[in-house]
Amino acid sequence: MHNFDNATQFIKEADQLLVLSHLHPDGDAIGSTLAAGHLLRSLGKKVTMVNESPIPQKFHFLSGAKDIYLPDNISEKFRYVVALDAADQARMGQCSRLFTRDVQILNIDHHATNDQFGTINIVVPTAAATAEILFDWIEFMNVKWDLPLATSIYMGLLTDTGGFRYSNTTPKVFRQAAQLVELGIESHVIADIVLESTTLDQLRLLKKALSTLQVSANGEVAWMVLKREDVGPDQEMEGIVNYARNIVGVDVGILFREVGDQLVKVSLRSRTKTDVGKLAKSFGGGGHARAAGCTIHTDLSQALQQVLAYLSVERECDQ
Amino acid sequence: MHNFDNATQFIKEADQLLVLSHLHPDGDAIGSTLAAGHLLRSLGKKVTMVNESPIPQKFHFLSGAKDIYLPDNISEKFRYVVALDAADQARMGQCSRLFTRDVQILNIDHHATNDQFGTINIVVPTAAATAEILFDWIEFMNVKWDLPLATSIYMGLLTDTGGFRYSNTTPKVFRQAAQLVELGIESHVIADIVLESTTLDQLRLLKKALSTLQVSANGEVAWMVLKREDVGPDQEMEGIVNYARNIVGVDVGILFREVGDQLVKVSLRSRTKTDVGKLAKSFGGGGHARAAGCTIHTDLSQALQQVLAYLSVERECDQ
Repeated sequence: MHNFDNATQFIKEADQLLVLSHLHPDGDAIGSTLAAGHLLRSLGKKVTMVNESPIPQKFHFLSGAKDIYLPDNISEKFRYVVALDAADQARMGQCSRLFTRDVQILNIDHHATNDQFGTINIVVPTAAATAEILFDWIEFMNVKWDLPLATSIYMGLLTDTGGFRYSNTTPKVFRQAAQLVELGIESHVIADIVLESTTLDQLRLLKKALSTLQVSANGEVAWMVLKREDVGPDQEMEGIVNYARNIVGVDVGILFREVGDQLVKVSLRSRTKTDVGKLAKSFGGGGHARAAGCTIHTDLSQALQQVLAYLSVERECDQ
Repeated sequence: MHNFDNATQFIKEADQLLVLSHLHPDGDAIGSTLAAGHLLRSLGKKVTMVNESPIPQKFHFLSGAKDIYLPDNISEKFRYVVALDAADQARMGQCSRLFTRDVQILNIDHHATNDQFGTINIVVPTAAATAEILFDWIEFMNVKWDLPLATSIYMGLLTDTGGFRYSNTTPKVFRQAAQLVELGIESHVIADIVLESTTLDQLRLLKKALSTLQVSANGEVAWMVLKREDVGPDQEMEGIVNYARNIVGVDVGILFREVGDQLVKVSLRSRTKTDVGKLAKSFGGGGHARAAGCTIHTDLSQALQQVLAYLSVERECDQ
C-alpha cells in the first residue's frame, strides 16, 4: 500500500524527529501534525512539533496542540523530518531552518501539486485529507488507537471535507469516520467547536459584510465589501464569502476586503459554472475552479469594477 | 431484526398504500416519505404520498417531491397506511381524514416518544433518523437500490444528524452514508442544496437579527429579537437562533420573534448546561434539553424580561 513500508522503515531508523505542516495551518494540517506526534511518541520516538504560524484558538482543545512550537522557539536542528499536508518546502515557512544539511524528509500529502520534495514521498491525491493517509498508515503499522490519536485524525477528515459536504467525501472517508467514532471520540463536540462556534467579533463582521451584499442583475454574482476599519487584526474571515456564494441562483460569491492603502484582497467562491481560479490567476492570484483569491493593487471601488468587469456584471444591481 | 418480518408481510397484503409523515416536514420526513414511495412502487404497489404541509422549495429537487400531495387534493380513502417519522397521529394533521375506518397502519419512527399508534410499530429510538430504519428494512428485504431511493435515505441521515454533527451520528450512520455514496449519489450536491443554500431574504433577516444581538454580562446567554414587520410570510427562520447559541462561551441562545399582537415565539438552543426544554415547558412550550420553544402571550419586551428573568440574566448587557 503506497510507500508505507519505506515510511515505516524511515521512522524506525530515527530516534528524534521533527514533525511539521504548512503555514496558516487548517484542521488537517494541525490534526495530521498531532496525529503524527502521538503516533511517533507511542513508538518510543522523541518528537518535536513545529509550525510557522500560531495554532488558532479553536484548535487548542486538541491534546498536544499547545506543544506545537513556532520555529523561533526551537534551537535544535533535526535530521529526520515528517512533513505533512505541505505541497512544497515553501509552504513550511521558516521551519526548514531547523533541518540539518543531511536532512531526510518523509513527505506525506494529498495535494496533487506536491513537488515530491521528500526523501520518501507518500503523495495520495485521491485522499480527502492528509489525515486519511495517516489513518491508513496507522492501520498498516497495526498501532493501537487511542482517543487523542483518533480525535486528531477525525479533525483532518472533518475539516478537509467541509464537514463531509465536499465532493471529496468518499465512502472511504465515511468508513474511517465510522471507525473513529466507534473508538469513542466525541465527534459532535469536535464539530461544535470547529465548525459551529463563532465569536461576537465574527458576527459583527458578518453583519457588516451582509449590509454591503449586492447581487448582479442576472442573479449569478453576489459580492460583499469590507473596509479596512471594519476588520480587526487577526480576525478570522473564513466563511464570510460563502454567504454570498450560497444564495440560491448565485454561481460566484466574492468578498472584497481592503487590507491597506491601494490594496484589496479578493476572495472568490463558485458553485458550478465559473472557474474562479482562472479569474484569480488573471489578477496575479491563485486557487482552483471553486475557491480562489487574489490581491489587487488599487482602491476598493477600482477592484470591484475590475473583477465585476471580468465577470461581465453590469453594476446596476439589486440590493 | 426489529419487526421487519411483520412490516414486510404488511406491505405484501396491500395493493394500494398511503405514505405520510409529520406536518412541517423536515429532511427526514420528506426523505423517508420519498424512500418509502420509491420502495413500494418498485415492489409493484400503487402509492399515494401525502403531507399536511407543502414541501419546502429546497427539497423540490428530490425525485418524486412534487408527487407528495396535500390531503385536500386527495379524494380517495386508504386502508393501508405507512406513517413515517410521526410520533403520534396528531403530527399527521389532516392526513388521517384519508383513512378508512378499518385502517391498518405501519408506524415507522425513531422518536422515543412515539405512542405506538400503529397496527405494526417499528419504533427505534436508537436510530438517528427514520431513514436509518428504512435503510435497514430495504437491506432486510434485499430490494435493489437505485439513485432516487439512495438519495432519499441520505437526505434523512444528513438532515437529522445536522450534517453528521449531532451526537446521534453513530458509526452506523457513517457506514450507511458510505454505502449510499458508493451507490453513486451526489452527496456534495445534496449537502450544498439542503445545508448551505440560502436566499437574499434569509440573509436580510439574518442581518436584522444580528443587529439586535445581545449577550448577558456573564457571557452565557445571547439573544436576538425580530419584530413582526421584519419577517415575511412563510419565511424560514431555521438556523437563525443558532448564531446566538454558537458564540464561544454562550450556553443558551434565544430568538424572540413577534408573531402577532401580544404574541411572541421564543426559540431556545443550549450547548451543554441549561435545560431549555424545562424553560420552554414552564412557559407552556416544549422540546428537549438542547432545543426547545414556546409561545408567550405578551409583548416583545415583556417576553424578553420573563425569559431572561428565568435565566437570572441581568439586563445590563454587552452589545
